[in-house]
Amino acid sequence: MSTTEELINASETRIFKAIFPNTTNHYNTLFGGTALHMMDEASFICATRFSRKKVVTISTDKIDFERPIPEGSIVELIAGISKVGTTSCTVKVDIFMENMYSYKRELTVTGFFKFVAINDEMKPIPILD
Amino acid sequence: MSTTEELINASETRIFKAIFPNTTNHYNTLFGGTALHMMDEASFICATRFSRKKVVTISTDKIDFERPIPEGSIVELIAGISKVGTTSCTVKVDIFMENMYSYKRELTVTGFFKFVAINDEMKPIPILD
Amino acid sequence: MSTTEELINASETRIFKAIFPNTTNHYNTLFGGTALHMMDEASFICATRFSRKKVVTISTDKIDFERPIPEGSIVELIAGISKVGTTSCTVKVDIFMENMYSYKRELTVTGFFKFVAINDEMKPIPILD
Amino acid sequence: MSTTEELINASETRIFKAIFPNTTNHYNTLFGGTALHMMDEASFICATRFSRKKVVTISTDKIDFERPIPEGSIVELIAGISKVGTTSCTVKVDIFMENMYSYKRELTVTGFFKFVAINDEMKPIPILD
Amino acid sequence: MSTTEELINASETRIFKAIFPNTTNHYNTLFGGTALHMMDEASFICATRFSRKKVVTISTDKIDFERPIPEGSIVELIAGISKVGTTSCTVKVDIFMENMYSYKRELTVTGFFKFVAINDEMKPIPILD
Amino acid sequence: MSTTEELINASETRIFKAIFPNTTNHYNTLFGGTALHMMDEASFICATRFSRKKVVTISTDKIDFERPIPEGSIVELIAGISKVGTTSCTVKVDIFMENMYSYKRELTVTGFFKFVAINDEMKPIPILD
Repeated sequence: MSTTEELINASETRIFKAIFPNTTNHYNTLFGGTALHMMDEASFICATRFSRKKVVTISTDKIDFERPIPEGSIVELIAGISKVGTTSCTVKVDIFMENMYSYKRELTVTGFFKFVAINDEMKPIPILD
Repeated sequence: MSTTEELINASETRIFKAIFPNTTNHYNTLFGGTALHMMDEASFICATRFSRKKVVTISTDKIDFERPIPEGSIVELIAGISKVGTTSCTVKVDIFMENMYSYKRELTVTGFFKFVAINDEMKPIPILD
Repeated sequence: MSTTEELINASETRIFKAIFPNTTNHYNTLFGGTALHMMDEASFICATRFSRKKVVTISTDKIDFERPIPEGSIVELIAGISKVGTTSCTVKVDIFMENMYSYKRELTVTGFFKFVAINDEMKPIPILD
Repeated sequence: MSTTEELINASETRIFKAIFPNTTNHYNTLFGGTALHMMDEASFICATRFSRKKVVTISTDKIDFERPIPEGSIVELIAGISKVGTTSCTVKVDIFMENMYSYKRELTVTGFFKFVAINDEMKPIPILD
Repeated sequence: MSTTEELINASETRIFKAIFPNTTNHYNTLFGGTALHMMDEASFICATRFSRKKVVTISTDKIDFERPIPEGSIVELIAGISKVGTTSCTVKVDIFMENMYSYKRELTVTGFFKFVAINDEMKPIPILD
Repeated sequence: MSTTEELINASETRIFKAIFPNTTNHYNTLFGGTALHMMDEASFICATRFSRKKVVTISTDKIDFERPIPEGSIVELIAGISKVGTTSCTVKVDIFMENMYSYKRELTVTGFFKFVAINDEMKPIPILD
């Protein structure tokens, strides 16, 4: 049997992604909607691996996009549980950007995504047993 | 020459979308990340058509996903300018859901996306001339 | 209870789309097949919203592509019912092209897509009750 | 140096495709727009291989979709030059459907796509030298 | 009733594909993973058409990518049965590259993909009856 | 200045992915070609982060797909440098599969992808300076 803290540690979720032309807008930077999509996917996997139950996104907090992510970058999303409620949990997800051809790496976006655990009738259930 | 109010009216942007299996998760409801992606796209087009300049997403406000959107629905996104700043504008985007086989229609999500106008050196410029 | 004319008015369907690199060919104009795909989607949604029944495309009329749509344009598709038969309806769909950075807007393509209403055994049924 | 007839024979273009869930609508049959997209792609490749010049779609003739193509089918598109003009050519494209688990094969759709050869300024040029 | 040799001849599978920006990396050549994806699809269709049974990929042999395939090329994949086992078959798939605007054509990659026939419980069954 | 061993440790690349309907075949398991595509992407990012140079896939070793990955699973790809040559490096990539609703986790596929570092003229250059 695992403690909540052990489950939090085990559910950290990392996703690397190379930014190719098919994910950029016509200024050759990552489309904001694509960044949001990747953040939701990383946090969804984290919340599922934490609770091992069906979860759905119920809200996102204010997100600031501080700098554009150019085509030809590599990004790493790191998602981890930041808050545990009765039927819900909140996931913090950071996007780090690396230049492909140097060792420069920086944090560019942070978001908080809240998920609720549901049963087959779409009713909330305890996030942990 | 158009007034700001005329530009706001002319830039309203509507997008209908049928929710097919390739945009749903394995519970057969619309993936949250896909909804965010569509909202960003609708609001980006609205902000571009309002300013007729290059714009990039700089922030999204808190967004609540009040009910799941099942496969086989039709959604309409309606995006309109809600606030005009010096170098930025804020777009409100609503998602309405219609059942394919009845006349039921309801508002399911509302979001606010903020855009800044930029020049080719990625520096902020006036959103309107 | 709605009249046919009210249903026609209520089922008009508009879709805006920004033309990004992932939908263009290597001349940086919209791929013809992508335009046909978008026209079919807009007219399918219109026919579904008109009849509130399952519909499938049964034919498309001759379509002329009068001018190429370059990357970096915004297009609006407007689909509306143009003819109502016993088990079928015909949708007219126009594609308007806007330049992102000016107020220029023009009609570039028009197509007619015919749909038939079907039941679960794929047999034609009345398009309206 | 090849004759027109030799070029026609050499430019026949065949494309097999398995119909998986990500190309079907929610009735589990191939979306009409996806079929049009594949037909345009096959005929574009055929017209390019015939002329070895830049070509763009300028029109499609009336197309009848006689029967739905279910998920789990295999389709073969066969595109061949059917008419040669001064600056244009017309491609006939057939879609054959095979059942995955039997030897049944039948023609389900036929379309004619017309292409014009263009130079870098998008002006028509001879389709063959 | 067909002989194995007749089935091998009838199951040859050809797929043409134009290499557009949405399938290339940021050096404007075909992404290796996309080439592998296309080779698996061509060989899967070939193995299905040979056996008319459910098949799954169980292995790929060493594959050498001898030269990059640039954006704006046309490729043809040709897949054919090269070996028949009791419950499995091996498909050889070649990728030929054509320049769009000349008659140059050359073999660029060859791979061998092995498939096993399975029943609904995912157990191996004879590849041919 | 980093040693080769430090660069190997720093370039380990992890990618989590939820297996949704749009990446599965019609048996509801992950399409082999999609697995190969994901493995090439993970190993490409690893090789780029190790060398900080342009790299292209030149070969893949024999890969065995030991068990199918069902829809509704979560997979983690872990890619790490396994061999360093003069102008090339080899990346080992493992795919681990987790059941969404239990703590079961197992290794399902292992592959080796070889990359060569190239300059702008596509000529091989030292993989490390």
